[in-house]
Amino acid sequence: MADEIAAQKWVLMVTAQTPTNIAVIKYWGKRDETLILPINDSISVTLDPAHLCTTTTVSVSPSFEKDRMWLNGKEISLSGARYQTCLREIRSRATDVEDEKKGIKIGKKDWEKLHVHIASHNNFPTAAGLASSAAGFACLVFSLAKLMNVKEDQGKLSAIARQGSGSACRSLFGGFVKWKMGKEEDGSDSIAVQLADEKHWDELVIVIAVVSSRQKETSSTSGMLESVETSMLIKHRAKEVVPKRIIQMEEAIKDRDFPSFARLACADSNQFHAVCLDTCPPIFYMNDTSHRIISYVEKWNRSEGTPQVAYTFDAGPNAVLIARNRKVAAQLLQRLLFYFPPQSDCDFNSYLLGDRSILQDVGVQDLKDVEALPPPPEIKDNTTTTQKYKGDVSYFICTRPGRGPVLLPDESHALLCPETGLPK
Amino acid sequence: MADEIAAQKWVLMVTAQTPTNIAVIKYWGKRDETLILPINDSISVTLDPAHLCTTTTVSVSPSFEKDRMWLNGKEISLSGARYQTCLREIRSRATDVEDEKKGIKIGKKDWEKLHVHIASHNNFPTAAGLASSAAGFACLVFSLAKLMNVKEDQGKLSAIARQGSGSACRSLFGGFVKWKMGKEEDGSDSIAVQLADEKHWDELVIVIAVVSSRQKETSSTSGMLESVETSMLIKHRAKEVVPKRIIQMEEAIKDRDFPSFARLACADSNQFHAVCLDTCPPIFYMNDTSHRIISYVEKWNRSEGTPQVAYTFDAGPNAVLIARNRKVAAQLLQRLLFYFPPQSDCDFNSYLLGDRSILQDVGVQDLKDVEALPPPPEIKDNTTTTQKYKGDVSYFICTRPGRGPVLLPDESHALLCPETGLPK
Repeated sequence: MADEIAAQKWVLMVTAQTPTNIAVIKYWGKRDETLILPINDSISVTLDPAHLCTTTTVSVSPSFEKDRMWLNGKEISLSGARYQTCLREIRSRATDVEDEKKGIKIGKKDWEKLHVHIASHNNFPTAAGLASSAAGFACLVFSLAKLMNVKEDQGKLSAIARQGSGSACRSLFGGFVKWKMGKEEDGSDSIAVQLADEKHWDELVIVIAVVSSRQKETSSTSGMLESVETSMLIKHRAKEVVPKRIIQMEEAIKDRDFPSFARLACADSNQFHAVCLDTCPPIFYMNDTSHRIISYVEKWNRSEGTPQVAYTFDAGPNAVLIARNRKVAAQLLQRLLFYFPPQSDCDFNSYLLGDRSILQDVGVQDLKDVEALPPPPEIKDNTTTTQKYKGDVSYFICTRPGRGPVLLPDESHALLCPETGLPK
Repeated sequence: MADEIAAQKWVLMVTAQTPTNIAVIKYWGKRDETLILPINDSISVTLDPAHLCTTTTVSVSPSFEKDRMWLNGKEISLSGARYQTCLREIRSRATDVEDEKKGIKIGKKDWEKLHVHIASHNNFPTAAGLASSAAGFACLVFSLAKLMNVKEDQGKLSAIARQGSGSACRSLFGGFVKWKMGKEEDGSDSIAVQLADEKHWDELVIVIAVVSSRQKETSSTSGMLESVETSMLIKHRAKEVVPKRIIQMEEAIKDRDFPSFARLACADSNQFHAVCLDTCPPIFYMNDTSHRIISYVEKWNRSEGTPQVAYTFDAGPNAVLIARNRKVAAQLLQRLLFYFPPQSDCDFNSYLLGDRSILQDVGVQDLKDVEALPPPPEIKDNTTTTQKYKGDVSYFICTRPGRGPVLLPDESHALLCPETGLPK
């Protein structure tokens, strides 16, 4: 049968779109490096794929001579263990596929001999440190599973995506997602589950400050390995602190209790960075700009009496700020634009990406409006805090909690040519 | 008798000089706010008073109408609880004093009615965040004890200085000092003890980088209170981590084992700052410049195979760098001057304070020599790390481990006029 189809020239394709996610209870530290099993549960918010997502087209053809992949238009190697694991795990679960229209029939066993072409694209700058590997591996696994008619549920797929990049497992669901660390040695119960979908708490607005940085950062893979090996605090965090926070965070999400949500998210982000600092040699992901953003938010939250904005930082200096609603998000952006105006030569249209409609609520249309912003009322006392830091933020992205992976059936979205199976 | 002496016009004075100290196992967190009892032991190195010290003159005269104090020439209030406690505790231990030459006789009971004048001066910028309160309270207690002929030993005096400023107790000894947290509720066993004097390990050279900062810092008093109240990691640190490190650090000092000393000092500094970050709201004492200094030192130490330099940071961005010997200290200064050259308009003579003779070993006499410094060999691979940060360090101080408090018998050192008891 394999020989039979090898003589054919068809290309079968699937295109999917998968969101990125931001952890509000952090994953930091593995108990198994190969299977990527974490030392604690984590909880994330899935970000709206309209603003931040990966699109992946996977294709199969008897004419393909080997597995190949292109990331953002550039061919990359698939020889890495993480890619190999994901490909192997999905292939082993492939089932019969039939496309009557195209007259294609692929038997369960054929998949072992057929090669795939993969093209993947992020709709946001890859270098910005916005967890592109999470969306990327989730999209790879999701699209391959669709192509190969894998019948496992999303939870099982999440356990495969997890072996590509830990946090990728959380990108297989929309809304609010928990990655259960699991107990089994084979990792079969270390899967993602949805706590609530994106409609459950749709008031939240998320503003990301992409912070300029000249430092070369420690990769999260090597960083968390060093933390597990050298931090004297990480075990206490994983065993004593996080389990309680997971319960409280699930409760806060269920009840849409923003003050608790914010307190937990901020405390857990800070504790993750504390563990990085307690690593030998210490790891610094946040810089002075990150610290300033925290200080501004803390000061504002204090002046309001109850938290209006939560902050969380992953393995880099970018701030992810979660506002309790759109009105607060507009006030937040006023503050951020006041402290971090764009460079004078900056095109203001590229200084806020994502949902730009918020600018109407902010009351800012151009650079002149930014310069006219008054200082936030909570800093009336102190002249030093009205200092501005032009250029310290590269740009902002306004987004919200979003849906999980979807198929894009319209072939116009495909990244590979339907005739050749090569990048368009 | 009191009336008898009140009619007299004499002034009796004592002048003392007390060093500052830098903790290598950190004190952070009190179990008693009033008595200033810590939640863990700490260990410090006393810094050479030739470069960093407080000089205090205390005087008594029947003509003084109230207790008064001048700090760096400016009168300050003594009404604070910490000053009051130190004055009360020393007064209650006063004994008979007789100055035959001047014909002065003060009975034990007279001290309750006599007032003191105190003048204190730091030989380093007070605003630089170099633990001036530690040297200050140690000097206050030491000089008052001498004036009032208090017969308690240094350990007992350290328990009084502790109530002025916790780390002040460690400034009552030279060399290497442990502050034992103690167990008693009244704090009587929470005292400093000398582990080794400054001659025990006299190879060490200490370079302090005074880091420019525009941020208003959290005071250590309120910072540690907030850490104790909100950090989920501080208890684990105090109970599980520090006790082991104290034993190891005592051993490292006893054996002059620099690699162990450096590893412990760096790890403990980082952990203290990790606990600050785990505080709610988080406390940031280190800034990007501090982080860069750590990264440079870590990289260099790694390239040498064994630690050459230890770093430690107190409640501020200044780096205290401990080099294993003078040769290493010169190499360290070459690196620091390479990365952090002075501003072009800077007087190079004020860019390195303390023991300036090290400049001969560094091979640098002026700004031109600094500009000609080659990049350190360990960064040959990466062009981005050769970036320079002109002006990010205000100045350097070169010093070494030093002696404990001493009396300055020569009246020319006195800060108060021997006739009036007012500042000279």
